[in-house]
Order: sequence, then C-alpha cells, then structure tokens
Amino acid sequence: MGGKNTKRTQTKSSAENNRLQLKPVGVIRSVLKERSKAPKQGAEGAPDAWIEVRPGVTQAIDGLAAGDEIIILTWFHRAHRDVLKVHPRSDPKRRLTGVFATRSPDRPNPIGLHEVTVRKVGKNRLRVGPIEAIDGTPVIDIKPILCSPCPAKKIDQPDPQ
Amino acid sequence: MGGKNTKRTQTKSSAENNRLQLKPVGVIRSVLKERSKAPKQGAEGAPDAWIEVRPGVTQAIDGLAAGDEIIILTWFHRAHRDVLKVHPRSDPKRRLTGVFATRSPDRPNPIGLHEVTVRKVGKNRLRVGPIEAIDGTPVIDIKPILCSPCPAKKIDQPDPQ
Repeated sequence: MGGKNTKRTQTKSSAENNRLQLKPVGVIRSVLKERSKAPKQGAEGAPDAWIEVRPGVTQAIDGLAAGDEIIILTWFHRAHRDVLKVHPRSDPKRRLTGVFATRSPDRPNPIGLHEVTVRKVGKNRLRVGPIEAIDGTPVIDIKPILCSPCPAKKIDQPDPQ
Repeated sequence: MGGKNTKRTQTKSSAENNRLQLKPVGVIRSVLKERSKAPKQGAEGAPDAWIEVRPGVTQAIDGLAAGDEIIILTWFHRAHRDVLKVHPRSDPKRRLTGVFATRSPDRPNPIGLHEVTVRKVGKNRLRVGPIEAIDGTPVIDIKPILCSPCPAKKIDQPDPQ
C-alpha cells in the first residue's frame, strides 16, 4: 500500500505512547458561526459547507466525486474534554449518561463524525453537506461510507444524542 | 450539557492551532497480533475483541449495553502517515487513488472507524465485534450509531478499500 513519490516512515506513536498528535487536513468554511446556533445533527436543518483542504494533502482527495457519500471527521475545538457524562440532547429530564453512549461534542477526544454528500470537488476544496460543524472547525479525516447512508427517518429521531 | 462533578475548561485548541493532542481512552485486546494477518474490514472474518477502558474515563461507558451498535474510532499506530495515494485494496492493478477516497490505514491521521456490536459490558471494559484492529491499538472514541448498521452485502463488496 505505498504512495508514489512518498517517503514511508514508521509512525513513532505506539500503544504505550499516550501522546497522539493530530494534524488538521483541512478546515470547515460555513455560514454557521456559533455552536449555540448549530443544529445537533446534519439532518436537522444544517447547511452545506466548504472543506478547505490543506496545501500539503490535496492529492489525498483524488478519486472523490460529486454525489459520493462520505464521512468527515472533525475536531470540535470549542468542546469540553473533561466531561464524562451528559444529559442526552441537553435535556435535563433525561438521566446523566456516559458520553460514549451519546453524540455529545463534549468528550475526552472531541471528534465529530458527519455523514455527508459531496456536492462539488475543487482543486483544493470540497463542497459537502448537510453538515452542522461551525466555521473554523478543523477537519482531521475524510473516508468513504462502506454502506448506504442513514435513512432520514432514523436521523429525525436521534436517541441518544 | 454539563457533567456532574467535572470541571469544565475550554479547550485551547483552535483552527489556528495545528497541534491537536489525542488522549487514548482505551486499548484493543485481540487475538489478532499482526497487521499482515488482520482482515481489511470487520465483516471479512474479524474476531471479537475487548476494549480495556482507561481508569480515568470508565464513567463514559455508562449507558452502553449488550446488543448496542456502536462506532469505535482507533489510532492505527503502525500506519504510514506520509502516504497520500494508494492502490485500493493493495491491488496494483487498481489506479493510485487519494487516501480520502479509500479506507487505507495509511493516511495523514491514521484513524480507524469500526462499526461493531457490543457483546458484553464490564466495569472497565467492553467486549465488541467483529473488529479487525490488532492487539494494542489505541481507542480514541466510542459513539452510538444513529442509523441501522451496514448490511453485510455492501461490506462484502468494498470498493474502494
């Protein structure tokens, strides 16, 4: 699985190394500017947005095309990483639940997972949506979906968050 | 969305900060010991495995139960981070493709995404499967699936990787 013209060096990280460093591969450019105004899930009325891909990694989007269903992983840079339990969907009537059983952005590693459709592919950017991530959110990975995207009826009833 | 007995501090990371630090929240304990022997996807004959959850974050699994369909995000600690293009499914007859259009573990941020079923929940560990991650792989996040899991017929024909 070698890339052409790329030097392959073994990652220094290991299971014993508890400092794993992410490099942003892009950034979200969206009309959504504030977390408080963003919907909780993409299917809940979120807009389309641009992903500006970092100059050093633009080769990695080769092969993506309009209409593709993909997963965007983001880093919720405004999240609270020391939160371990939340009330799902911020509803105080629902019992405190471990964040790994919810989609809360507040969690030890505030990674967002967004299933979106590719609308357009530029030289160094992708138009995708719908996506609830706010403007300026770092993108950390992009992957194809291996199966059909979520049916809307399921997203309309998110439980837990 | 506040946790009980947790101090909430704003994450210092921002879009401008290109050093985002992951903290492993657990580790995979599997009979699979080598990358070369692991299947490429969970549905391609992978075993079940344990996730040992780190002592400081065990509260975060509260709410998960046997039978739940969840997503495990892992860090492929043996991956090559400077690879931007690969031959899908390691097949040299297939054209070099950007890693963001494939599921190659070699990519700028070597994050693995695994859809699994929870088999058992212990005090500080989860039995999940099937999962192709090898023993010692750091776990970086756990999330519920918002919709139905992948139908097997789709996973049997992965294209691209």
